[in-house]
Amino acid sequence: MTLTAAHETATSYDLGPARALSCRECGHEVPLAAEFACPRCFGPLEVAYDFPNVTRASIEAGPKSIWRYKDLLPVPTTVAEHPNTEPGLTRLIQADRLAAALGVRKLWVKDDTGNPTHSFKDRVVAVALAAARELGFTVLCCPSTGNLANAVAAAAARAGWDSVVLIPSSLEQAKITTTAVYGGTLLAVDGNYDDVNRLATELAAEHEEWAFVNVNVRPYYAEGSKTLGYEVAEQLGWRLPQQIVVPVASGSQLTKVDKGFQEFGKLGLVEPTPYTVFGAQATGCSPVATAFEAGHDVIQPVKPDTIARSLAIGNPADGPYVLDSVRRTGGSVGHVTDAEVVEGIRLLAQTEGVFAETAGGVTVATAKKLIEAGKIDPDAETVLLITGDGLKTLDAVSGEVGPTATVPSTSKAVREALAHLA
Amino acid sequence: MTLTAAHETATSYDLGPARALSCRECGHEVPLAAEFACPRCFGPLEVAYDFPNVTRASIEAGPKSIWRYKDLLPVPTTVAEHPNTEPGLTRLIQADRLAAALGVRKLWVKDDTGNPTHSFKDRVVAVALAAARELGFTVLCCPSTGNLANAVAAAAARAGWDSVVLIPSSLEQAKITTTAVYGGTLLAVDGNYDDVNRLATELAAEHEEWAFVNVNVRPYYAEGSKTLGYEVAEQLGWRLPQQIVVPVASGSQLTKVDKGFQEFGKLGLVEPTPYTVFGAQATGCSPVATAFEAGHDVIQPVKPDTIARSLAIGNPADGPYVLDSVRRTGGSVGHVTDAEVVEGIRLLAQTEGVFAETAGGVTVATAKKLIEAGKIDPDAETVLLITGDGLKTLDAVSGEVGPTATVPSTSKAVREALAHLA
Repeated sequence: MTLTAAHETATSYDLGPARALSCRECGHEVPLAAEFACPRCFGPLEVAYDFPNVTRASIEAGPKSIWRYKDLLPVPTTVAEHPNTEPGLTRLIQADRLAAALGVRKLWVKDDTGNPTHSFKDRVVAVALAAARELGFTVLCCPSTGNLANAVAAAAARAGWDSVVLIPSSLEQAKITTTAVYGGTLLAVDGNYDDVNRLATELAAEHEEWAFVNVNVRPYYAEGSKTLGYEVAEQLGWRLPQQIVVPVASGSQLTKVDKGFQEFGKLGLVEPTPYTVFGAQATGCSPVATAFEAGHDVIQPVKPDTIARSLAIGNPADGPYVLDSVRRTGGSVGHVTDAEVVEGIRLLAQTEGVFAETAGGVTVATAKKLIEAGKIDPDAETVLLITGDGLKTLDAVSGEVGPTATVPSTSKAVREALAHLA
Repeated sequence: MTLTAAHETATSYDLGPARALSCRECGHEVPLAAEFACPRCFGPLEVAYDFPNVTRASIEAGPKSIWRYKDLLPVPTTVAEHPNTEPGLTRLIQADRLAAALGVRKLWVKDDTGNPTHSFKDRVVAVALAAARELGFTVLCCPSTGNLANAVAAAAARAGWDSVVLIPSSLEQAKITTTAVYGGTLLAVDGNYDDVNRLATELAAEHEEWAFVNVNVRPYYAEGSKTLGYEVAEQLGWRLPQQIVVPVASGSQLTKVDKGFQEFGKLGLVEPTPYTVFGAQATGCSPVATAFEAGHDVIQPVKPDTIARSLAIGNPADGPYVLDSVRRTGGSVGHVTDAEVVEGIRLLAQTEGVFAETAGGVTVATAKKLIEAGKIDPDAETVLLITGDGLKTLDAVSGEVGPTATVPSTSKAVREALAHLA
């Protein structure tokens, strides 16, 4: 029996500590491969590990990127030697002014806009590329409406890989430009994101050398989000925060941050102190919040209608696991209107000098609402994950902010305007 | 005599290793204060230091930001304890694909788009803010047309300071939004950048609590650019590169990178190996390149006309010092057309996944030209400084790049389009 099991999960790939793919539903294990659904129950597969001995010192001696955690990720041991975008180790800033504005004792902002293409997607794409290379793929692909398209096109360019990115043709010019500039194949499809996603899944089945990061190598890709949890813990001085607020699109990120915290505890890198995970959604796409509030285990899909387009996934694959994480840790999932999203963006910018995309506005505004509702403990330390950049969603605020005054070019006019403002 | 000299430069400010302000022309020293012009000859003042003992280990043990070099900057020893944007320690990536495209042996890209507001200005503003606080200022100000406005407004927001930013009212909506979102006073002036600059200088004289980062605290502000040189040397493994290409606007950055390399050598942090500094300008604003080519010591001001607006300073204050650095190290100053700038942006994005603003396109394209002209040695290692983000100058490339194809939302159409591309 033991022999059979060992054989079943044997692999010739160097994917570091990754041991097998394990079904999140039935626990069945399959060897490491480009698979994403359990052959027995069709449940989602995730990476299972045999971790080596990892110490704080060994991590601290590593690169100033996510590769400092390579011994905890499904990537080859030589990952840092291949050209990659070197994402991660973004700022964790103590946010005293935002804390005061929100009425909490201690707050931190994890600012992932510092990544190479200015969103957390660089983390997951870097892990996907490294695993894809080892699995024998040669083309990096995705369906996307924004951040992921940027990250895939940039990572492929840097690695010297071809890329195929599928987007809805209705996408804003700016998002097309910020992907097209990296070269590669950019297919604009006359359809919505669901259409693009469906076409991507078909193409993944037809082209065995194409790695669609969020489809056929999704189990590896998703693990990249663990590094957000690792970094928060390391940057807090090797300890877990008491509370963390994470935006929810597919829900993958929230579950992986939770997984990262748990792994650090189990590995003895931090004290396994209790923590609470909160999810944040836009009201216009809040299927997970709705299920949470109703006490359901199943997510009812919705048709998204929100300015927070990077979170606009109406049928979130990891929604049920978000509910598990949040309920297990005593948290909750909140949601906010588009007007509150804009207020959240402005509040964060004006108190901490961090200009977030709409998803960041969702996180800040949801935190505010959960504090006001007494769900987030104002006396416990809280971390907010800011996962994307305001420069990519300028339209959300461009009608709301502008010059304080416009004046003629004379000293007198400037003095008068300033006196009026004082 | 010694007593008088000591008295003359005595100060009660804690500005770390800064000892005095020293005239770059006549060498006269004045005590640390908010001064920028020599009282004897009106030459520009710069910071003079008495450096403490600094080691590689002491730097490596410091914060993952420019404050790891605080013992070499004119900032209080407690600088990291005050809320600030924590800029710096951005990626230095080995750029093998760009090297191959340019026909050189070894190339590195210093990607300063990873800073909090995505340009190197966060470095200089952070140093200016720290010095300004110690000097007794309470409001952070600047005239600007873009990157500096973003950095000042964000840094002031984070610090809880008021800010006053002056911009030409003709500025693009995107640049207005990305400054206004941080709050503070944003005055749009119906005039050009020269008008705005003049008004700023007047206001600096009238408001003793207003620190105009690039006017009355300029000597401190400018020192922030040394950290680009420090980081390159540290990230290369504590050694100097053989060649470096730096974009030239006022010219300050180039001279400070040079100063940083020299300081590291003198302090024994690196071997003081020879290096060559190259300057890069847009042809439409190339007064330093023109003076270099003509063998002049004096810069003839020009009226800028280039898409590289962040480099469009027609009368560069540090131009003569750029000529000194470049000539002393055996380098040169090149310039490129706007069409070449766009090609430079695209080449960098397509080979290394780094999307630079127009200034970055100037750097890449000038490097290409200087390699072709035999001025940059293709067998010597070269570093390119990429100092700002393509997301801020989308217009430069938006007419040049776009989808590879636009197709109906059917598998057949996608397959045909891909077959056609293959």
